[in-house]
Parts: sequence; structure tokens; C-alpha cells
Amino acid sequence: MEQRAMNVLLVYAHPEPRSLNGSFKDFAIRRLEATGNTVQVSDLYAMQWKAMLDANDSGTRHSAARFDPSLDLRRALESGTLRADIAGEQEKLRWADAVILQFPLWWFSMPAILKGWVDRVYTDGFGFGVGEHSDTHWGDRYGEGVLAGKRAMLVVTIGGWAPHYGPRGINGPIDDILFPIQHGVLFYPGFEVLPPHVIYRANRIDKAGFAQACAALGERLDALWTTAPLAFRKQNAGDYLIPELTLRPELAPGRSGFEVHVEREPRCSGREPAEQDVVSLAK
Amino acid sequence: MEQRAMNVLLVYAHPEPRSLNGSFKDFAIRRLEATGNTVQVSDLYAMQWKAMLDANDSGTRHSAARFDPSLDLRRALESGTLRADIAGEQEKLRWADAVILQFPLWWFSMPAILKGWVDRVYTDGFGFGVGEHSDTHWGDRYGEGVLAGKRAMLVVTIGGWAPHYGPRGINGPIDDILFPIQHGVLFYPGFEVLPPHVIYRANRIDKAGFAQACAALGERLDALWTTAPLAFRKQNAGDYLIPELTLRPELAPGRSGFEVHVEREPRCSGREPAEQDVVSLAK
Repeated sequence: MEQRAMNVLLVYAHPEPRSLNGSFKDFAIRRLEATGNTVQVSDLYAMQWKAMLDANDSGTRHSAARFDPSLDLRRALESGTLRADIAGEQEKLRWADAVILQFPLWWFSMPAILKGWVDRVYTDGFGFGVGEHSDTHWGDRYGEGVLAGKRAMLVVTIGGWAPHYGPRGINGPIDDILFPIQHGVLFYPGFEVLPPHVIYRANRIDKAGFAQACAALGERLDALWTTAPLAFRKQNAGDYLIPELTLRPELAPGRSGFEVHVEREPRCSGREPAEQDVVSLAK
Repeated sequence: MEQRAMNVLLVYAHPEPRSLNGSFKDFAIRRLEATGNTVQVSDLYAMQWKAMLDANDSGTRHSAARFDPSLDLRRALESGTLRADIAGEQEKLRWADAVILQFPLWWFSMPAILKGWVDRVYTDGFGFGVGEHSDTHWGDRYGEGVLAGKRAMLVVTIGGWAPHYGPRGINGPIDDILFPIQHGVLFYPGFEVLPPHVIYRANRIDKAGFAQACAALGERLDALWTTAPLAFRKQNAGDYLIPELTLRPELAPGRSGFEVHVEREPRCSGREPAEQDVVSLAK
């Protein structure tokens, strides 16, 4: 099979290099490079990434002025005065063909340091606030944007059991827990989002289990370019009323919630969702 | 009407004191105190709260040892060697009758600095890992735990429009977006969770709008002790199979997703959900 070489950015958030997450990270780098890809790693703890977005992120504003997180960072982006750490991550994102976010699920979301990477790197004019904003076009987002044409995937370790994250599990279904990240953080600025790779009971993995887990992760990494993305609906492809931005009544009629933003039925135009998507998103 | 005086902890996360959020925070403190409550504020940006959980959070471990976020912080808690900032927040939580988390919604979740407050303050043995863990009792959580008997409420500002966060809005329903916080962060260690107070189009509020918004927030604060909490199902009240922790098949039969963890029908025993809950959680 033809193997396309890609630029891959791995954004990784765990405080202990000798952890299971650290081992998966090392494995992923080796596997991606062995299959011809070029890899950059943003190891946020090793970089001592500044997690909090604040007035220091914009270099040129007057220190006495009222800080507007959106406007001030937009101006800094446009004038080339963003802090170097933010500008560097934006440059890596522009370079990448695929981005992997790897993290342990802490309190049903990303560790704070990774959330701070999103808060700070996704500035107005880069992560949002892109394209025309009017009553007929609500920006280039949800399938369009600066990161369109790139792929993204989550690699997530979880201490609990898979049934606890199943359709009727007490924590809620994992696809719904990850929706604010997969749809709200990745699809929003344009990424095509691959189904997540989730490793359950991560704190109980022995040596044999680790070998198995690496094999499974390796298969996902090998298929980074060929896996069908989740079939999130694009904002500007006709499925939504604008400016309400509600799903047209004739689509998924009578239904609501996260699931309606995933196409399930074949469309007259466009591709049919792959079986894999449907299984992954079944509720 | 009888007014019960409470201890209220306001945890607040916005980088600019002169922001709308800062004004709401000041208003909330005045209103809560004017109605007889004692208020403590954790103004995370003003405190320069350390957002990232790391090995420095546990005072006694050997610096060369492998850092285990869960185990090392549990030991630090038990031996009284937690970092002072974490111990101080845990003390405030023990003191409080009600906790309010106030923040702008950034990327469909909390700002990183607040996520880091959760990551670090909710140590093993405090926020989780409480009570018997066996095949018949999966810990004191989801309705039980260290913070049981206390109330919690989110106050959230959002730049977008309410319909964008409605049942079929493109961002997903606000109750589902907030579920990982309300159910996973607040209900998990025992809080009774009040319906959230959400302020939409927060970046377009003028003087008249601000007065209206303060009036609405004031009503919610006045009703902090009397508002019916969201009817999340308790883990150990018989609704879940253990250890799978899936909802019993006869409850909400054939349904799945976040919504099944909210009681909707009157039960033979226990209270009937208030009308307010049903409206707030309608999908």
C-alpha cells in the first residue's frame, strides 16, 4: 500500500516522562518516523508551557489598558508581536499535515496545561474569527478555517473501565465527553477529526498489555492518512440556518443533542459515512 | 421569607478585573454579603494560581522517584504535606455551604487556570478515591463524597447567541457542553448542582443590558439555598449495575447519552423532579 509521508505534530501533556503516557509518546514518535513521517513534539510539561492566557501574551499593548483577550491577541497576531511561545506553536500547526493530542483524561477533559495550549494558541484570527462574519456567513469554522485540510486525532488514556464510558455508562458516553474537544476544538478551526484512540484501565496495564496497547496504537498511526474522519456536518455546506445556526428542521427531524451534528444518512451529494464512523459514534 | 446565612466560596477565573466578568464578580460578592452570607473569593488570576499539576505539588516525595499524580498527592494529603495553595483551597471547600464557579466559556470548557484548580485541588482522597472500592461499592461518588451536603452553581458568560447553544444549535446544547463539569466535576464529589446561570452575547452587553443581567444574577444568588438542584442520579442509590456502572435496563429503557443520568419520571420513593429541572435539561 502506498504510504504518504506526512508532517506530524504530537502535542503531549503528562507530568511524568516515565509514565505509561510517556512510553506511548516515545512509541508513537518511533513508529511515525519509522514509517517515513517527520515528527515534531510539543511536550508541554517539558516545555514548561505557560497555561494561563493573560495580558502578557500580547507584546505591544499598554500595560495600563484594559486587556481584551480576543482583540489584543488578534492585534498581536496581525502585527507579529505575539509571544514567541504562541507564535511557535502556530507555526508548527501550519507546518503539520496531522496533529495528535495525547493526554490522560483528567476530570473528563484535558489536563489544564493542554487546555492552556488551546486557549493561548487558538488566537482570534487563527483559531477563530476567520472569514466573513455577517448575517449570511458566520465565519469560516466547523470544517473551514486556518487548519482546514489537516487531520487531527486524540490519543487518550483513562483509568476507568470501558463500560463506565459506554452508551449508558455512569460517566456518559466517551464520544459525548470528547465532543467539546473533537467538534469544538478540532473541527472548529477546520481539522478533519479521526475517531479517537482511547486506552481504558490505563493504570492497570502490565507488560503484555502494554505490548498489545502499542500494537493497537501503531495500527492507528499507520492509518493516519487513510482512516475515514468523523462525519461532522460543515457549518457552511447548507445544513444550518444562518444566523441562528440551528440544524435545518428537515435534517435529523425531531432529534437533538450532539449526535445531530454527525451525518448518519447517505446524502445526495458527498460521501457516505463509513461503517467505522457509525460504530464509533453510535449512542 | 426566612433567609439562611451561608458560607459561599466564589471561584473566579478571568484575566481582566475591569471586564464584564469582573463586574459580575464584584456584584455577586456585594449581593451575597448584603443578604447575610459570608463570602470567600478565590480570584485565580489575582492569586496567580499555578495551573499545572506536577511533582512539585507533593512536598515529601523523593525528587528522583517516578511521579504518580494520584498516589503521591494522596500521600501528601494524608501526611499533611500538600502544597499550601492546594491545602488552602481544600480548606475553603470544607468551609463552604455553597460554591460558585464563575468563568467565561473558552473553547467549550473552563479557562485553563480554573481547570488547573480542579486538577490540583481535587486530589485522590479528597475529590475522588473516597469510600470503599470493591465489586459492590465503587467509591463514594456521584452524589456522595467529601463535598456532599454542599451546593454548587456555575455562572458562565458566553460570546455567542443562545440559539447556537440550543437543542439543535451548532455548538451543541449548553446542558450537554456543561455536563462534564456539572456532573463530572461537581456532582462527582458530592455537590448538589443547581441549574447553571448562563449569560449569552456577553461581549455585546450595554449599560441597560448590564443592569438587567445583574438583576437576573441577583435573583439566582438570592435563591441559592431554595433552588431545586438538577436531578442527577446517585451512583449508590440503586439505579446502576455495579461494577459495570451502567444504568439498569429498566430505567430510561432504550435511551442513552448524558440525559439518562438525569431523573425525569417521579419515583416511588424520593422527590419528584421540579418543573425547573425538566425545562433546564430538556433536549
